[in-house]
Formats: sequence, structure tokens, C-alpha cells
Amino acid sequence: MNEPLAQLAELVATRRDGWSLAGAFYAEADVYRAEMNAIWRRQWLFAGHACQIPEAGDFFVVAVDTDSVIVIRGDDGVVRAMHNVCRHRGTQICGEESGHAKKLVCPYHQWTYATDGSLQYCRGMQEDLDKDDLGLIPVHLRTIEGMIYICLSDSPPDFDKACDLMTPMARPQGLTTAKIAKIVDYEIQANWKLVWENNRECYHCNAHHPQYIRANYDHYNEDDTTDAIRTRIECAVERGEKKWSAAGLAISHKQTGMACFPDPDHDIWYSANRTALADGYVSESMDGQQVSTLMGDYPDPEVGTLRMRTMPNMWIHASCDHAVSTRLLPAGLGKTRARVAWLVDENAVEGEDYQLDRLMPFWQLTSEQDWDICRVAQLGVCSGGYRPGPFSTYKEYNVDAFVRWYLKALSDQN
Amino acid sequence: MNEPLAQLAELVATRRDGWSLAGAFYAEADVYRAEMNAIWRRQWLFAGHACQIPEAGDFFVVAVDTDSVIVIRGDDGVVRAMHNVCRHRGTQICGEESGHAKKLVCPYHQWTYATDGSLQYCRGMQEDLDKDDLGLIPVHLRTIEGMIYICLSDSPPDFDKACDLMTPMARPQGLTTAKIAKIVDYEIQANWKLVWENNRECYHCNAHHPQYIRANYDHYNEDDTTDAIRTRIECAVERGEKKWSAAGLAISHKQTGMACFPDPDHDIWYSANRTALADGYVSESMDGQQVSTLMGDYPDPEVGTLRMRTMPNMWIHASCDHAVSTRLLPAGLGKTRARVAWLVDENAVEGEDYQLDRLMPFWQLTSEQDWDICRVAQLGVCSGGYRPGPFSTYKEYNVDAFVRWYLKALSDQN
Amino acid sequence: MNEPLAQLAELVATRRDGWSLAGAFYAEADVYRAEMNAIWRRQWLFAGHACQIPEAGDFFVVAVDTDSVIVIRGDDGVVRAMHNVCRHRGTQICGEESGHAKKLVCPYHQWTYATDGSLQYCRGMQEDLDKDDLGLIPVHLRTIEGMIYICLSDSPPDFDKACDLMTPMARPQGLTTAKIAKIVDYEIQANWKLVWENNRECYHCNAHHPQYIRANYDHYNEDDTTDAIRTRIECAVERGEKKWSAAGLAISHKQTGMACFPDPDHDIWYSANRTALADGYVSESMDGQQVSTLMGDYPDPEVGTLRMRTMPNMWIHASCDHAVSTRLLPAGLGKTRARVAWLVDENAVEGEDYQLDRLMPFWQLTSEQDWDICRVAQLGVCSGGYRPGPFSTYKEYNVDAFVRWYLKALSDQN
Repeated sequence: MNEPLAQLAELVATRRDGWSLAGAFYAEADVYRAEMNAIWRRQWLFAGHACQIPEAGDFFVVAVDTDSVIVIRGDDGVVRAMHNVCRHRGTQICGEESGHAKKLVCPYHQWTYATDGSLQYCRGMQEDLDKDDLGLIPVHLRTIEGMIYICLSDSPPDFDKACDLMTPMARPQGLTTAKIAKIVDYEIQANWKLVWENNRECYHCNAHHPQYIRANYDHYNEDDTTDAIRTRIECAVERGEKKWSAAGLAISHKQTGMACFPDPDHDIWYSANRTALADGYVSESMDGQQVSTLMGDYPDPEVGTLRMRTMPNMWIHASCDHAVSTRLLPAGLGKTRARVAWLVDENAVEGEDYQLDRLMPFWQLTSEQDWDICRVAQLGVCSGGYRPGPFSTYKEYNVDAFVRWYLKALSDQN
Repeated sequence: MNEPLAQLAELVATRRDGWSLAGAFYAEADVYRAEMNAIWRRQWLFAGHACQIPEAGDFFVVAVDTDSVIVIRGDDGVVRAMHNVCRHRGTQICGEESGHAKKLVCPYHQWTYATDGSLQYCRGMQEDLDKDDLGLIPVHLRTIEGMIYICLSDSPPDFDKACDLMTPMARPQGLTTAKIAKIVDYEIQANWKLVWENNRECYHCNAHHPQYIRANYDHYNEDDTTDAIRTRIECAVERGEKKWSAAGLAISHKQTGMACFPDPDHDIWYSANRTALADGYVSESMDGQQVSTLMGDYPDPEVGTLRMRTMPNMWIHASCDHAVSTRLLPAGLGKTRARVAWLVDENAVEGEDYQLDRLMPFWQLTSEQDWDICRVAQLGVCSGGYRPGPFSTYKEYNVDAFVRWYLKALSDQN
Repeated sequence: MNEPLAQLAELVATRRDGWSLAGAFYAEADVYRAEMNAIWRRQWLFAGHACQIPEAGDFFVVAVDTDSVIVIRGDDGVVRAMHNVCRHRGTQICGEESGHAKKLVCPYHQWTYATDGSLQYCRGMQEDLDKDDLGLIPVHLRTIEGMIYICLSDSPPDFDKACDLMTPMARPQGLTTAKIAKIVDYEIQANWKLVWENNRECYHCNAHHPQYIRANYDHYNEDDTTDAIRTRIECAVERGEKKWSAAGLAISHKQTGMACFPDPDHDIWYSANRTALADGYVSESMDGQQVSTLMGDYPDPEVGTLRMRTMPNMWIHASCDHAVSTRLLPAGLGKTRARVAWLVDENAVEGEDYQLDRLMPFWQLTSEQDWDICRVAQLGVCSGGYRPGPFSTYKEYNVDAFVRWYLKALSDQN
């Protein structure tokens, strides 16, 4: 197995600063396997929201490449994660994507585990079996304001810094007192890195996201921000700050362009910022108007958007009244599963406080616009005629940051 | 090609006695390729029943991974096997799964072979061609009481011991004077080894096979056999033995649990035994009643079940009135083709002596129940979260025997 | 990467003169990858006809394995080829198979290229970017009488000899004043080499091509040509030559059997010849009658057939009134895409001068007959039971020539 790794190091070394990755990163099965081990089975992954499993025994299943993980709320109310694989002969325990279970019972020979993963019952086995050693293999789990993260590694990287930064920013949004209004699952026909490269720039927004650019300012960059635009941004910032000054609600991203993220030089794989919305917009909705009741501690709809993202698989945009999270999971060299979840206040009632056809279109359209151009990008980067190209220093500084983060993460572990 | 083999030896060495195999055995293409050569292209494989091809020119085709083999009855009445590949430019000769042919004619350039595989005619070739050297490549073939075995190796392992053991046990069943009542083909979404591991234990029977456990005693094991059950088994054995004592009809498996098989320590890849059926059952049918006329030499319906199995791809359960064989063939890392064949006496008439809806359900249900749980097992053992687990010494001694047989077979040839 | 190449050399060395290739050439992914680099990304490939893109901005796309190439007529009327991959981040530019474009605009960030591939516009990029260095990657392109060839290599092999030979032979056919009457695309379930092996002999014609053999003499070979047949061929040759004697129209293939091609010993990967049609045939049509108006400079329908072919992916048969070209493109180990195009004079009007149901059947049937037997051949050569077999020295001299050409081409580059 040493030869592929030597080839990987050579491949990493080919990268020219400020230019896109070589085609092999998107087209070679060996690279994908290396990523699975170095990144996806080592880093903290966003799994879902605690409000998806409010009751003891509620669970959902997360598929990371070939691995299946159960995230379940225990009888003690604690949310835990464990491999969805029986310790007897390896059978998959939960076949459904989500559900409710008093016990986790393997369908094959009925080995029975408690909701904390401990082996409770295994009829027919020898008496001297050490049951304590045969609980479901635990997966590390942490939460930030109801956002559940898991880590498949035995020795997970630091989580506290992410938690410390994101918690106060997220708190007013009320994600712990939210509910899921809708989940939509997508299969993107592109490598997961192309999805991030797409996410990390708004260079493509003008042509692809007519809805998004009406609501936001971050598609403007240093090169195309006029004085008029700068004034509008400043006004928008001021508008909010007049109303409230609590730390968590302050607009923290005031300039043009997107907030810088990630930052491999300082091991920053997490970020959160509050950004002004365009004039006339209090929510990332089609017409900018509120589409559900206020969430969390918000005193007023005019709170801009709270945005958070964590490498390698999550971003969330939250307005005063709803939040939309996106979770990525790799499912092969050229396939990425995306789950987009719309959250509203737990007391909001569908049909009264919100309508799905008003709540969803903004991010449904924006997401699908992205997935489609990622598909077209995949077709190109796998061609023998593809050569790395230059990133815009005005507009793609974050794509470069992503690529540098990726190469570091890939190399650190090999 | 030496590197993969070294890795295979390392992998084999990881096995812990009495525990299940590492995930790589079910998930790595290199392992599958090694198995194809070390096991499936070296061992004797059950191909089908002689009664499928009663007339000269009758043939069927067997697909072992990518290899296709014709099994055909020659003009001289002898059944032979040969590769389904023209000696000219390699075209597949028989496209149908079974049929009747006076000659085997390659569809491409009409090279024509006799039913014994010899090249008879090849219009347009040079005169000095040595036709004798261009017959269809023969595949070794042997039969045991109408059960046809083939071996793709040039130097097949010993067959005589299997033949000597199985022939007298099988003879009274009358498989040579049987006919096919029905064949059903399945595509199991699991590695072939999982299908055997499933077959080699009845630990799963209580939960999965409500029909099977009513008819049989072998799902009871040392740990859960009460005195009452032991008495019922003894009565069942006695019931039969009162009626007949001919060698072939004696109940040879009298204890609880399944007959031990295979036995890698003594190179035993074949076995046969007669086992008592439950009280009130004379046939493995839904209600235990006879579902066709008596087969072979049976004097009386109360003959228990004759069971035979050969590694790596056959088992058969035979009652007084019908027999059901299962043939496995690997079709990729996670796919196994199974053919289940129901045999009855050659003179039995459908609609009069037997009805398919009475004959088939017992084994159709039992088979499909197994295939489904094998599919679920496959999903788990390919997960990164799978770790080998312990076999029950009470109930999975035969799974352990299978695994040891497999590892020996895999290693012997590499 | 040296190990696979060493194994390839070993594999090449196994070939026995006059016998077919080892199965690995059709079944091993490593061989396919080697071919893509040594042959398909090095040699001249037929791409299509200039008349498919008559106007400036007309384009079509050619997929060679994973590579996509745009062939486009520039504003200056010149036809050029370039990789269908944006120089920015590698996105595929043209999603349609053919069309018309004033500019080539990448759908992602709207980088805009002129029809000559030069980068014209890239909004949002840094000012110091060297646009001259960021045109679409050019692909070498040459034409012979409207037949467009491309070469993916930076240093293409010689083209002039092919051009010099084929141009005068092709000229009278008028392919530069032709139009496409119909294109049909096929996906052949066979390795591309099997398609050529099929094309390079008429040993299979009697059994597979009832239409073809009525129109042609080349299915006769030295071994089965009677005096009567030889006389008919001589008459057919004479018939034509009485009428015209211009160099390009002379029957150049006068003997039985197919014209010899390719010739690896003299680096001949191109050929052209004029061949007599059977008595009563002036066109390769179902009844031998003319099916469209005369093409090019033909003074009279009785011109036999002009046949040209170039390795590794083109052949064309042209009668007085129409021409049918076949373009092969590999799409995986066991899949070949074939495009069959019917050409008629540019002034011929459908429904008046020609009907598709009279124009197409001859080559549609003949092509589909070939694709089907290639599929069956693929099934056989991938079997473990396949062994190379002998070619007929009478009928398969050209299959042998192809195999020798292939092995030389494969080895030269590795």
C-alpha cells in the first residue's frame, strides 16, 4: 500500500499556488480512497440536527462512503453515535434511514443492544463471552447548539475551538428549539470537492443564482463593488446595529465578498458570521419577507443572516425565521449525496405559521442550480484535456483556501 | 502479481480462531479474483442434474464468474462439459441457457463441433490445420447419482472419495430416475461466502424460517435442547428405523444441531446424512404431507430427509417424494447466483401426482428468507465499522468449519 | 506505473504469429488504459465530415474515452479542434453533441472563447492574467477531402502520406460538396479491437450479411473462388474501365478477397481503393440501383465502390450516389461507440432525389449484423476458457495484419 501513497505525494506536489487541482484528484479511485481515510474517516462530520430525534429511541442513519452510522437518542436523553454493524457477524442493524427503537436488534440472530450501544442479550452464545467488549462500536459525537457532529476516528481532532466559536454565534437562532420542516435528499453527479469549490465562491452567482443575488451582497467583490454598493452594504449593517447590539447578533461580516474560510494555516475548519441581507430582505426567501415565525431569541426580523460552515461537509444559512442546512456525504468518486434541511421554530405550525411553498423555493432553487453546474464541472475535470487553471484573486480566494485546506488534510494523514 | 498475494497471506493471518472473517474478504476485488482462481477454477462444482439433459444433444450452460461452460449429452449418451468458447477466435458458441443441438456451431464463422467437442468442420481454413488439436477445451466432469460435477482445473482434486461416500446414500432417492419439476434462479445481493455462512447454521432459523423449524429438529442445539426435545428426536429416529434398516435409509444424523461440515482438517468437502423429520412430517412441505409420488426405491414415505452438500456450491434436501437442490455461482464480489431446482420422480405428472403450489413453497420461502438476510449481512460486512465477531460454539461450529475450509482452500493454491 | 507496462510487454510477447490475441487484451482494464494512451491519444482519429459544420460557428463534439473535443468552424471558415474544457476550472463547455455558437462560453463563470479557441473575455479575473496562454487547448486537425481527422497528441504522427494517397482517390466522390442525409449512433457491446477484427475479414459475410454479399465480390477468397467467379470479377472490372480511365476512377482492387490493410511493416494506417460491384449493382443498396443523384465528378453510375479506411477508427464505402462512413470511438473495455453517417450530394433533396428508406437499409443492416456478432465475440474472449486460435490464411490475413498493427502501435509508445 505504500506505492499509491508515494504517488499521492507526487500528485499533491504538482499543485501550482492559486491554480486548480490536477484532474487525478477528481478521477482516480486511489485518491478517493485516500480521502476517505485521511479526511472523511478522520475529521468531524456534520450528521444532522438533534431536533430530528427528540425522543429517547429516535434515531437516524448516516452513510459515509461505505460506512453506516446510527445516531440515536438514548433512554437517558443523551444522543450517541455508533456503527450500524452487529458485533456478531457484521450484519447491518438498522435498514431504515430513520425511526424509533426501544432496543437495537440485529435482524440476523437477534443480538440486542441498548440505545447506548451496550450488548444486552445474545441468546445462544457461549457463557464465557465478554459482553462488555461487544457493544456497538462507538463513534465520537459532539453537538453545537443542536447540530450533531460525529467523528469516525479513534482519536478525533480538537472540537472545542469550533464549539467555542460557533456556540455563541448560533445560540440566538434557537436551533435547539427548532423542528425540521422538510428534508430533501439529492445525489449530485460530482466529486465532493467540486461541490465545495462551488460553495466557496460567488463568482458564478450572477449567472446561476437570480434568487440568491437579490437577497445578498456577497457576490460583489473588490473588483466590482461600486461606491453605491458599498453604501448600501454600510446602510444594511447600520440598520441592524441600530436595533440591537448583543454580541451574537452583531453583523460580523461587513465587507464585500464572502467571509474567508477555511484557513488551513491556522487549522480553521469551522466558521460563523452574521451578514447583512439586501435592503428590503429580512429572510432568504423569494420575496425577502418572513416565511415563518421568529426563531430563538430574535427580538426582531432584521437580523441579517447567520452563516456557519464546517469542513468537510456542512454549511447553514439562517434568517430570522428559518434555517437551511446542507450536509454533504461522498458516495463515490463522482457522486456526492447532499441533504438539505429546512428548520423552523418548534412551535411553528405548517399551514398556519409557514407554508412549504414559500419556505423552500429560495434554497431549493439555489441548491439545485449549484448541483447542476457541479455535474458539468465533473464532466470537464475528468477529461484528458483538462489542465489546472488560475483562480480569480478577487473572487476565488476561498476556493484557493479550500484547495489548500484539502491538500493539507490529505497529506497530514498519509 | 506477487504483491496482491503477499497481502492476501497477511489478510489470512489476521483471522482469529472462532471469529468471523475480516471485512476485506467480502469487499476487496483482489480477494474475489484470488478466490476465483484458488477455489472456483480449481474445485469440483455442482453443475446440474443429468435429468435436465435426457436426450443426446440436450445441453445447458453454466456461468462460473466470467467463464461459460456447456454441459451436453453426446451422441453416445455420455454427458460432457467443455468451454463455451470457439477455438477459432473465441466467440461464445451457445447463447441460450439450455437447449438441444445436433452439432455445436459457432455463430461467427460456423466452425462446427460434434457433441463430444471435437472440431468437425471449419470451412475456409488452411489445409494443414491440426483439427484434432482444436476441439472445444474440455472441462472435467463426473457424476454422482445424476448430480453432475465439473472442474475447470487441468488437474482436478480427488473426486472418488466424495463419490464413494455419497453414492450409496443418494441411491435410494432415485435422482437418476427423476425429472425437474421446476427451476427458479435468484440473484443474491451478497458475497458467496455469506450465503454459505448462512447455510452452515440454524441459529437464525427461529427468527427467519417459520416453515423450516416446524419440519426439522436441527435448529435445536446443545444449549437449548430440552429433555422433551431429545425424546422427540429419539422417537423420530426410532419410528423410521422400525420400518427399514437398509444401509442407505438409516438415520445417520441422530443428535441435535446440524451435521458437521465441512472438515478442512481431513479434506472433507462433501457430506451426506439422513436426518429425522419432525413428528407428523414425511416431507419438507408446508403441512408435512407428501406432495408427490414416492421417489426411487423408497418403500414408505417415512424416510426422514436425505441431505447432501459439497463445497463450494451445492446442497440438496431430499424427502421421500421430492428433492430440492441449490447451486451457487459467484457473479462478482457482492453478487451470487443461486439456482434452486425441484425434482420429482420421472413418472410423476404435474396436476395429477403433484402441484407446484404444494411442492414449491417450503423451499421457495426458506431460500428467499435466506437470500434476504444475506443481503443485509453484505451491507454490514463492507462497512468500515465492521470488526470480526465471535461465533457461537453451540450454534455456529459449522460456520467456523466453513471459514477454516475457505482459508485453507484459498491459501493452498496461492 | 512501470509494473503494468512490464506486464503489458510480457502479454504482447505471448502472441503466436497468425493466431488471435490473448484474452487479457479484451478483458483487462490496464490494457485498455495503455491503449488509450498509446493509440487513441496518439494517432490520427477520424472525427467527422466538414459538411456537418458548413457555417462559421457550427460545431460538433467528439468523445474519445473520457476526453471531449470540440470541432468547430471558425469565423474565418477554418475548421479547428480544441478540448471541450474551460481553462479556468475545467468545466465542460459544450453540453450538446452539436450546434452553432458565435462564441464558446463556459456555463460556469462565462469565460468566453472565440471560435478559434482564443480566450476573449474573463470577467472578474486579475488584471495580470496572461490571456494568450489561456486559450482552449488546441487539438491537431487535418482534413482529407472533407474528412476531418484530429490527433490528441502534442506531436502527431505523419499525416501527409495518408493525405497524399487518399486525396486523389477520394476527390471524384465529391465529399466536399456532400451533405449528411442521416447519422445513426450505436453502442456496440464489444471491445473496439473486436470491431476491427470483424471489419477486416469477410469470412463471416456469407452467414451474416445476405445484403452485402449480393453486391460485392470481396467475400470470395483464394480458396473458394471458382473460375466462373473470377470471370465475373474480370467482367465487372472491364465494364467500368471501358467507360473511364481517369486515375481516380480506375478499379484498383481487382482480385478476390479484401484489399490488404493495415500494413504495420510499412507504417500504413490508411488506404483507399476502388472495387468492382457485382453485376447489376451500381450502388451498395438493397437492389443495387441508384438511391440518390450522382455525387461529385462521377460521369456515370458505374464506378464501383470507393473504399477508404484509417486506423484506428474509420472506414467508408462510397458508391456513385452516396457514401457511408463509420467512426469508432472506445467507451470502455467492452463498449465501443459507432457513428454511421450517410452522405449524399449537397443538392440532393430528401423525398425527391433520395428516400431514407431506400438509402439506408444496406449499411444499416450490415452494420447491425456486425455489431451483434461482435457482442457475442466479446462474451467469449473474456472467458477463462478462451485460448487464442488460428486465423485463416485465406480469409483472415487482414485480421492478422490488424493484430500486428495493434501490437506494434501499443508497444511503440510504451
